[in-house]
Amino acid sequence: MKNRLVNIGIIGLGTVGSGVARVLLEQGELLKARTTLTFRLKTISELDWIKERNLDLTGVICTSKVEDVLEDPEINIVVETIGGYEPAFSFISRALRNRKHVVTANKALIATRGKELFRIAQENGVDLMFEASVGGGIPIIKSLREGLIANRIESMFGILNGTCNYILTKMHQEGLEFAEALKGAQEKGFAEANPTLDISGGDTAHKLTILASLASNSLVPFDKIYVEGITAISRQDIDFAKSFGFTIKLLAIYRAVKGGLDLRVHPTLVSNSHLLSAVSNELNAIFVQGDFVGSTMFYGPGAGERPTASAIVGDIVDLSRDLMLQEGEKYCNRSISLVEHSDLVPIGEVANRFYLRFLTVDRPGVLSLISGVLAEHGISIASMVQLETQEKDSCIPIVLLTHEASEKAMADALEKIMRFDFVKDDHIRLRIF
Amino acid sequence: MKNRLVNIGIIGLGTVGSGVARVLLEQGELLKARTTLTFRLKTISELDWIKERNLDLTGVICTSKVEDVLEDPEINIVVETIGGYEPAFSFISRALRNRKHVVTANKALIATRGKELFRIAQENGVDLMFEASVGGGIPIIKSLREGLIANRIESMFGILNGTCNYILTKMHQEGLEFAEALKGAQEKGFAEANPTLDISGGDTAHKLTILASLASNSLVPFDKIYVEGITAISRQDIDFAKSFGFTIKLLAIYRAVKGGLDLRVHPTLVSNSHLLSAVSNELNAIFVQGDFVGSTMFYGPGAGERPTASAIVGDIVDLSRDLMLQEGEKYCNRSISLVEHSDLVPIGEVANRFYLRFLTVDRPGVLSLISGVLAEHGISIASMVQLETQEKDSCIPIVLLTHEASEKAMADALEKIMRFDFVKDDHIRLRIF
Repeated sequence: MKNRLVNIGIIGLGTVGSGVARVLLEQGELLKARTTLTFRLKTISELDWIKERNLDLTGVICTSKVEDVLEDPEINIVVETIGGYEPAFSFISRALRNRKHVVTANKALIATRGKELFRIAQENGVDLMFEASVGGGIPIIKSLREGLIANRIESMFGILNGTCNYILTKMHQEGLEFAEALKGAQEKGFAEANPTLDISGGDTAHKLTILASLASNSLVPFDKIYVEGITAISRQDIDFAKSFGFTIKLLAIYRAVKGGLDLRVHPTLVSNSHLLSAVSNELNAIFVQGDFVGSTMFYGPGAGERPTASAIVGDIVDLSRDLMLQEGEKYCNRSISLVEHSDLVPIGEVANRFYLRFLTVDRPGVLSLISGVLAEHGISIASMVQLETQEKDSCIPIVLLTHEASEKAMADALEKIMRFDFVKDDHIRLRIF
Repeated sequence: MKNRLVNIGIIGLGTVGSGVARVLLEQGELLKARTTLTFRLKTISELDWIKERNLDLTGVICTSKVEDVLEDPEINIVVETIGGYEPAFSFISRALRNRKHVVTANKALIATRGKELFRIAQENGVDLMFEASVGGGIPIIKSLREGLIANRIESMFGILNGTCNYILTKMHQEGLEFAEALKGAQEKGFAEANPTLDISGGDTAHKLTILASLASNSLVPFDKIYVEGITAISRQDIDFAKSFGFTIKLLAIYRAVKGGLDLRVHPTLVSNSHLLSAVSNELNAIFVQGDFVGSTMFYGPGAGERPTASAIVGDIVDLSRDLMLQEGEKYCNRSISLVEHSDLVPIGEVANRFYLRFLTVDRPGVLSLISGVLAEHGISIASMVQLETQEKDSCIPIVLLTHEASEKAMADALEKIMRFDFVKDDHIRLRIF
């Protein structure tokens, strides 16, 4: 690296790409003062040059040919911001093969095809960095892999999807139903036109895959994570949870337990005395417990042009530091482990406290029959609410909070309970943290 | 560095030294899996070898001669854990001159003599690392200097002293007076026998000096920071604050404002809607706002053997990574800037909202005179409480919350108010965040 100059190429000038360009153009002096390095945004490849982005790209090579980035021997670091699987995968692997470091925010790609990409990076003596892929601007990846490196990570509980957290917060604070809150989130730009990946929990599971791989120092298979989204949550569940002192959050859960890793994504009742319950709107937070450090929490914006760019440029600076120290072929791998993790604990074997809501016909004996089935399966009830109704034989909700019980026992009990003719189809089972 | 082996020497085997030894002895395999490096605790120098520490030091050189660490050419990294100014300063500078990297948790030393030490480190092509000096196990130093490097830091609000936070939490939750809460903290080991440095705000100011230097990329003079401790806080202030929806916290404040840096340590009323208000007991948190990332928060244990060791070993690993990449004389400075910061905003020029409590004789016209003086100085009242009393001419507290006003105006107004014969000596002025 001559003259302490780092040449950067960006692929894609959407929200994230524009943010990265903005940091490099606006914070050049700040970065130079802090690192003694000059970061030069050399080339941007993008297909749509018509769109107004409010960026002064004087001096930057603006091209529609991705080769101008991938094949330029002067470019040290490539930032991939186009997202999705293809052509992102091809572009990243080509950049790595050309011995360029790569920075990406592409969680879907890292979670599902990370193994291939990290292998290519290692084989070529370069690194693939992905701080922005989880928690947006929160330096959680760096904290896990560097700051907390002395720790066995015992557990993590993360609010990792801003869209879901925004929707749940609005349901909680404004008494909205799911569909209304989703509509509001879309209008305010906190949810996509097609929100499926977010509200299904899929995006959270991508992020959990990445965090879990770092925490366990192994490759965690994305498709073996148990995932439930938030679409089944109703306003009445939010209200019941509130009355018991809980807030419902979509949590990514990592627990190192006897027998392996317990990894799950599902809506969870979080006690209002826990800091995570206070993480509102589109914000993210990750609660991390290590065997030496104890309990820590990292909080901040999980998405957006500027926070994402902050994280990406953090990666760029780290890689540049390596470039400056490296001599010849020296290489100090920042990859995650490529050993696959084989011990995921099946969801059935996990124990949880549960929140159950049934809609039942209001007649004598209903509660006794339901609690009888739970007792048969060794599930004991911690608290219960049954609302009064004026009308005879009308339907009423019954809400039960259980003590800890196995998922298997609960699934079996639920199946039996749902067979009672007095129990209507509309029911829900949530976990309590 | 041969065979990917890093040799470590520890100076001092008190709480922190024992913790570091424990990590290196217990987590060796974990660290090797994560870094491919072997961390060998080669030598510990300590004067008291009688004390039981529950550590198996087989294979470690246990010595009372600090030279065995400082002069051993095989030792790559020295960990200083004895604290205080001397002989810590001499030991660290000698280690650096012998071209060993040094890791310390010594906030007092870094805050007051950092400039000399960082210069020696730079001159010798080695680094002095200090993650554990602020926020214990929370990777806040790393986050500021690396993860958030793309950001101009606009403000930071930190709960940085576990002793003070524990005392204030107990006063808040259990209705204790300051002296009782302090005694309880001492009994539980959360406060020293001589707690002066903690409760005076001095320790918090040391830590703020370090954070401010990193955030501003300059050396901030410790002795120019405005500091107030928590000894004047009474239970009634806690209760009044609570009734207005606030929790009193000792905050370290960093604000980049027009005219320079506004740096302060003082007890502060934090709104209960702010996440910092929920940081309880001995825990620490730092709320950081950057121009790209927005608002982030870092939370965790601010002290203790294990969290501090977690942070120190994080530094050891970073330095080892550098050792591995470095070839010959190559050196990539991790020091903080040695340029002194000249633009600290004097406290008088800062504007704040204020909480005022006066003890006054209960007679007509008192409130009108007090509020009259405030009005004269352009200070307007946001809310007010005056409690009833049964006895004639007895003393009553009056509590006022003001809108934003300058510190100068407030100081002038207070001086006048305190001259009224109906106002007793016992009064307090706190800031609101």
